[in-house]
Amino acid sequence: MNAPVGRLEDSLTLPQPYLLFLGDTTNAAYAKTAFGLADWAGDRCTGEWAIDGCTVSTGLPRLSPADARAAGARSLVIGVANQGGVIGAAWVAVLVEAMEAGLDIVSGLHTKLTSVAALVEAARRTGQRLIDIRTPPPSIAVGTGRKRTGKRLLTVGTDCALGKKYTALALHRAFVGRGLDADFRATGQTGIMIAGGGMPMDAVVSDFEAGAAEMLSPDAPTGHWDVIEGQGSIFNPAYAPVSLGLLHGSQPDVFVVCHDPTRSVVLGMESFALPSVEEVIDMTIRLGSRTNPAIRCGGISFNTSSYDADAAEAVMAAERERLGLPVADPIRGGAAFDALVESILA
Amino acid sequence: MNAPVGRLEDSLTLPQPYLLFLGDTTNAAYAKTAFGLADWAGDRCTGEWAIDGCTVSTGLPRLSPADARAAGARSLVIGVANQGGVIGAAWVAVLVEAMEAGLDIVSGLHTKLTSVAALVEAARRTGQRLIDIRTPPPSIAVGTGRKRTGKRLLTVGTDCALGKKYTALALHRAFVGRGLDADFRATGQTGIMIAGGGMPMDAVVSDFEAGAAEMLSPDAPTGHWDVIEGQGSIFNPAYAPVSLGLLHGSQPDVFVVCHDPTRSVVLGMESFALPSVEEVIDMTIRLGSRTNPAIRCGGISFNTSSYDADAAEAVMAAERERLGLPVADPIRGGAAFDALVESILA
Repeated sequence: MNAPVGRLEDSLTLPQPYLLFLGDTTNAAYAKTAFGLADWAGDRCTGEWAIDGCTVSTGLPRLSPADARAAGARSLVIGVANQGGVIGAAWVAVLVEAMEAGLDIVSGLHTKLTSVAALVEAARRTGQRLIDIRTPPPSIAVGTGRKRTGKRLLTVGTDCALGKKYTALALHRAFVGRGLDADFRATGQTGIMIAGGGMPMDAVVSDFEAGAAEMLSPDAPTGHWDVIEGQGSIFNPAYAPVSLGLLHGSQPDVFVVCHDPTRSVVLGMESFALPSVEEVIDMTIRLGSRTNPAIRCGGISFNTSSYDADAAEAVMAAERERLGLPVADPIRGGAAFDALVESILA
Repeated sequence: MNAPVGRLEDSLTLPQPYLLFLGDTTNAAYAKTAFGLADWAGDRCTGEWAIDGCTVSTGLPRLSPADARAAGARSLVIGVANQGGVIGAAWVAVLVEAMEAGLDIVSGLHTKLTSVAALVEAARRTGQRLIDIRTPPPSIAVGTGRKRTGKRLLTVGTDCALGKKYTALALHRAFVGRGLDADFRATGQTGIMIAGGGMPMDAVVSDFEAGAAEMLSPDAPTGHWDVIEGQGSIFNPAYAPVSLGLLHGSQPDVFVVCHDPTRSVVLGMESFALPSVEEVIDMTIRLGSRTNPAIRCGGISFNTSSYDADAAEAVMAAERERLGLPVADPIRGGAAFDALVESILA
């Protein structure tokens, strides 16, 4: 994320540093976006702000919009999601105040900022921008399948919501820690805010899905790695088109399969059995080789958050033995994670 | 086509007869809309029109917009699709002339007619309508994978633009001719123009692609067949997400693989080899069994338009022998096509 975000600069690069807005939330679970930003983009967060009643804090300094602007902030990010993904009526005054202080507003909520008349009026008056990150850039081209320069890694999964974003972030951090030239390429709302840009893949029209992934990771220098956040699963009866377009357009050299060993059925679709890790490896190679015949599996990322350390190591060791591939939990890190990184870079 | 198109039936009523517009195309494969309308709705097409440089013809009389209007035409239909689905700059003057002659404009291109200022101005001035048929219905739900009642057939392909729509229309006609209860389910611009309703699958947002296919072929009586027009190819580096969402959401009992035996590379992507028919059968079964474990291949539809009758029969006989499946060209019909229908209904 130290490198610029390719040709998306003009269309979907977010103004940083951020002021994180926590609203009036009293439950940290609703402030996951703010915590994710504090954890993964803390150096690009000037502070946090809230309104009366908020009892949650990321630990960053509390700054009013005017003070945050004076400290260098360029946008206020809505870091909370409430029931229904709407923009709280109590928030509007703060958002207007932030625009008057010189901050753009960034939101990943379902409700568009531009659907709130008071915000549109304030944006017009102040010249600040309302940035809805669920809106794809306007001019995505149809995919070409052309081989691009540079190296690419894609995280794929046996299901949704089991660690594809976290794995990509951890691998990107490890690559940069080893002195490699690497970019994290975000494909979902939280990832886009962390990266400061990206492509909301699930909001792109199907005919342009692969083209959007191609746009997300443009030609890069030899030795450069794009570490691309995966979405969904090729085996998901609802979301597979997102996963396949991302796979074809990303043309990954290496992929990492993300899996939660406690899960046996698809999240929210209990009549569908989870595919096995082997099925995902096989199908990803078969489909992915269409745009990169050299595609290979670099290893497996296990989400072992419901195991203690010994049980986690045992389940990962068994899988390592069974598949003959590195298996690691990026949250636990350690030698297993180093081995995964080595396998990817081999 | 004679039967109503389910719950989508009130979404479109297009002004007919049509004048087919061929633009300046030099490749008949890009004019499949015009050819499809001439063949399947020829009694509702007054003629065709083109601009300098066009080398393609449907065989209908060439009529200027004014002459077509005098002959009864009520709309000009854009019958060509170029890469990316944009409105050619050279076309605008003809479309304005057509409105001045009293014709509405019908388009299935990605670029909306209403996004072209000169067309909006001419529509306002003349009182004619700009009808963009590639606008999905507003409330498509995320796919569920739930098994629906009734039988479904999907045409799939080794590539784009080689006969998936024709094959579905011919099979629907054959089913109805045998007294079966069947609907043709249109998924692309030409099919929708022919059928008068359907789902523009390639214009649907990726997250809702499978859900859109589920909506297109709702629960139906036992013994009823939905004959669903396929799109693209699972192996197409640009359009595979459309094909996969359609496959998952259609949950076909039977599929027919459409192929052009003269084609060796992907249309418009000459560096990509065409997949073999066997690869398409195998991958369609593997991916399609996710939502219908009983999925099977009913046979192969060959586009033998560049062969004479003897050569066509020879190439189909060889493929029949090789695959052990019925192979027919629906345009040639005959006993081979009857055998394909029997295999599907077996």
